[in-house]
Amino acid sequence: MIGLALLTACVMAVAPPARAPLDSLYRPTAERLIGAALASDHAYLRLSQLCDGIGHRLSGSPELDRAIAWAANAMREDRLERVRLQPVMVPRWVRGAEHAEMVEPGPQALAMMGLGRSVGTPPGGITADVVGVGSFAELDSLPDAAVRGKIVLWDVPFTKYSETVRYRTAGTNRAAARGAVASLVRTVGPASLRSPHTGSTGTYVDSLPKIPAAAVSIEDAVMMRRLMARGERVRVHVEMGASTLPDVLSHNVMGEIRGRERPDEVVVVGGHIDSWDVGRGAQDDGGGCVISMEALRLIRQLGLRPRRTLRCALWTNEENGARGAQAYAESLGAFVGRHVAAVESDGGVERAVGFNFGAFRLGTDSTDAPRAARATARAREIGRLLEGLGAGQIGLDGGGTDIAPLMKKGVLGVEHRTTMEHYFDWHHSQADTPDKVDPVELRKNVAALAVMVYVLADMPEPLAPPPPAATATAAAPARTR
Amino acid sequence: MIGLALLTACVMAVAPPARAPLDSLYRPTAERLIGAALASDHAYLRLSQLCDGIGHRLSGSPELDRAIAWAANAMREDRLERVRLQPVMVPRWVRGAEHAEMVEPGPQALAMMGLGRSVGTPPGGITADVVGVGSFAELDSLPDAAVRGKIVLWDVPFTKYSETVRYRTAGTNRAAARGAVASLVRTVGPASLRSPHTGSTGTYVDSLPKIPAAAVSIEDAVMMRRLMARGERVRVHVEMGASTLPDVLSHNVMGEIRGRERPDEVVVVGGHIDSWDVGRGAQDDGGGCVISMEALRLIRQLGLRPRRTLRCALWTNEENGARGAQAYAESLGAFVGRHVAAVESDGGVERAVGFNFGAFRLGTDSTDAPRAARATARAREIGRLLEGLGAGQIGLDGGGTDIAPLMKKGVLGVEHRTTMEHYFDWHHSQADTPDKVDPVELRKNVAALAVMVYVLADMPEPLAPPPPAATATAAAPARTR
Repeated sequence: MIGLALLTACVMAVAPPARAPLDSLYRPTAERLIGAALASDHAYLRLSQLCDGIGHRLSGSPELDRAIAWAANAMREDRLERVRLQPVMVPRWVRGAEHAEMVEPGPQALAMMGLGRSVGTPPGGITADVVGVGSFAELDSLPDAAVRGKIVLWDVPFTKYSETVRYRTAGTNRAAARGAVASLVRTVGPASLRSPHTGSTGTYVDSLPKIPAAAVSIEDAVMMRRLMARGERVRVHVEMGASTLPDVLSHNVMGEIRGRERPDEVVVVGGHIDSWDVGRGAQDDGGGCVISMEALRLIRQLGLRPRRTLRCALWTNEENGARGAQAYAESLGAFVGRHVAAVESDGGVERAVGFNFGAFRLGTDSTDAPRAARATARAREIGRLLEGLGAGQIGLDGGGTDIAPLMKKGVLGVEHRTTMEHYFDWHHSQADTPDKVDPVELRKNVAALAVMVYVLADMPEPLAPPPPAATATAAAPARTR
Repeated sequence: MIGLALLTACVMAVAPPARAPLDSLYRPTAERLIGAALASDHAYLRLSQLCDGIGHRLSGSPELDRAIAWAANAMREDRLERVRLQPVMVPRWVRGAEHAEMVEPGPQALAMMGLGRSVGTPPGGITADVVGVGSFAELDSLPDAAVRGKIVLWDVPFTKYSETVRYRTAGTNRAAARGAVASLVRTVGPASLRSPHTGSTGTYVDSLPKIPAAAVSIEDAVMMRRLMARGERVRVHVEMGASTLPDVLSHNVMGEIRGRERPDEVVVVGGHIDSWDVGRGAQDDGGGCVISMEALRLIRQLGLRPRRTLRCALWTNEENGARGAQAYAESLGAFVGRHVAAVESDGGVERAVGFNFGAFRLGTDSTDAPRAARATARAREIGRLLEGLGAGQIGLDGGGTDIAPLMKKGVLGVEHRTTMEHYFDWHHSQADTPDKVDPVELRKNVAALAVMVYVLADMPEPLAPPPPAATATAAAPARTR
């Protein structure tokens, strides 16, 4: 018997055996999971409990604590194993009272929302002339006198999020560097019904004055620029009570289904349990949380136990610090090499279209192209199980804020993808509420995610074993969401 | 010579002569008007002056007075003739401070907006349980105990405006008749980013208690119904400082190009100069005003003077009383028979698609079908001049609040039509601002309207002469906008 095993091993080393395609191997199980997911409105009920019952949940708020306790209870209800809270210290930014109005050429309230991390204004606020620019280059081209002592308005139309969000993140320091007294950014989104969108601005640079930063609605940004184009002097008063208090204790929430054969190998799937302090964090990222929980609940309910451990992790503080994701990755230490995949859902729960795989870059960018090609082909086999849902697209360049620290350590990152047709209309605004989640599409998202994570956790060989150096620090795209 | 004239008259009485098609008769003039309209951003500049410079303009507000003075000045600048203000007493409803919040099951601010004509709440507001219904029939089916002392929430999804708006207009009295203490209507519109839309509620019925009425955002209406569907008790506090003060003086604004041959015959074209007290009244109806003014300005600028008098009228108080339209029609007295057409633009200035003709119903509904068929065919000839703009559709059943009193007296009503793709997303809300107006589409609207009113005012025979009884009171569709 030993001789035969050795012989087999030698043959495998020469030419790997043809493996059964994953879609034929897993079709009956996928059908059960898809059928069960489409039959149940349990995820929507959970979304309503989280968003209607608890509300928004910014880091440091009592609502976030309640949401974390609720999620742990829900995982226990679902009979997940090792349900636990992982302590994380998180920033505590508080908005305080805030308002802004145009005082010249005519008085008009502005629809504004302070940006996360921003300092407040001095008591009584700031009143200054506005200088409007459409790009970093336009600000750079202005003489000092045109900027110093003024409020910079970044009036940049939305193209793609990763492009336009730079004015929200980098704009504050850029304006401060030119002597501006405040920074206003046009809401980062394609459409507005006079609704401002918040989000983090960049960390203040120590060498520069810390100036307050806020978003204004698209309507108000465009109006101010239109007035300036007509030669009017635009003057704005802004008052913000924002402040950053000492860090407070928060938690990642985790629960799992222990692997039946290789319990030390882990597939982790999740979203972020925190949200901004406006709206209800339904698409961002209540949806990602409830579909991750629901995927495990259904797998458990159908009596399935994958080969590897399947873990649901709801990370804390994604929105203004990403401390939960850092703490999770750090806590793994050398065991990070046992994470065979990290799946993140943080692009809303509109119509599911597929998954983007991130760590393939580790192969394609470096030397092991055949391995990358094999892994891509295997991922497409999983995708075929989801074609009936319209959710079978397999792409590359996946990533996400909460899996970025794992991906940096060489873990295969997998990003759940939806159409995002309206996602940025609602993102970080009062409009991110459960009515934006289509209950039928939510079920399909559950189905797609359940099949993907089950197969990743159960397939005979991991899709992409960690690269030789498990501590490789290949760049993984970190995204601000 | 007399003999020949008599002979000709006799022949005409037997068989009317073939008339030259209007599109061949007017093509060169139409091309000049379209070319001039598409070359100029003057209408957009005017829209910005009105909406950015003056702002919203509810009946009785100083802004409406300023807008009326601005419009008269603009017409003088354009060298229109007989520029004048027509005095009209208008209602003066004032919103006052207002807010609402859900107090059970969990405290949450509601995005609300009181409805025009509503009374306020008693000082300290009203706190009551909410009963949610999806139709008049659903309210009717409830036992008294389920409604008495409660707040009725009309949670009716938007289908078409004329259908859904009934819950805003008729819902208040319907709720009062069942003993409710307030009426909340889900925002009448297809989409919301947590934006409530105001608008008039119906006149209070004297025999019923006058209860306050407000709109809530779609998000909040849906949330309350979702909570109730889960068995939660929903309780709301609403506070409104609304009141109706004594009527005040306002004005219709008019200017004209006097007809070169039949100056006593008139084609009137316009929109309403008032707006709600939120947003900037850009689509509703700043756009209709500026394109009407611009149509006459271009005709004048090209040195054209139509056969009949072409009048621009900007009516006051369309939104909460329609007193301007009534005063205009009444002031005509017996001369209303000299109005050969009344053209209204109050459906926004999205992509122009054509015109709907209303008074044809006078023919098709009654005995003079051949006359109606001839008039329709003539209107289609005008439409052909607009096909290159994509604005040549000629339909029936046109109407509008400001031309309804004229149509009731037998005047041909003509409704300017646009796609209205997003109109009701913005309508009566903070989002009705000039950025919603596409400058290129605005030019095309000017072009379409200028050609239509020029041809109507110049064509050898009126399109549809007043019916035999000039005082006929055939029903014309009045619309609430």
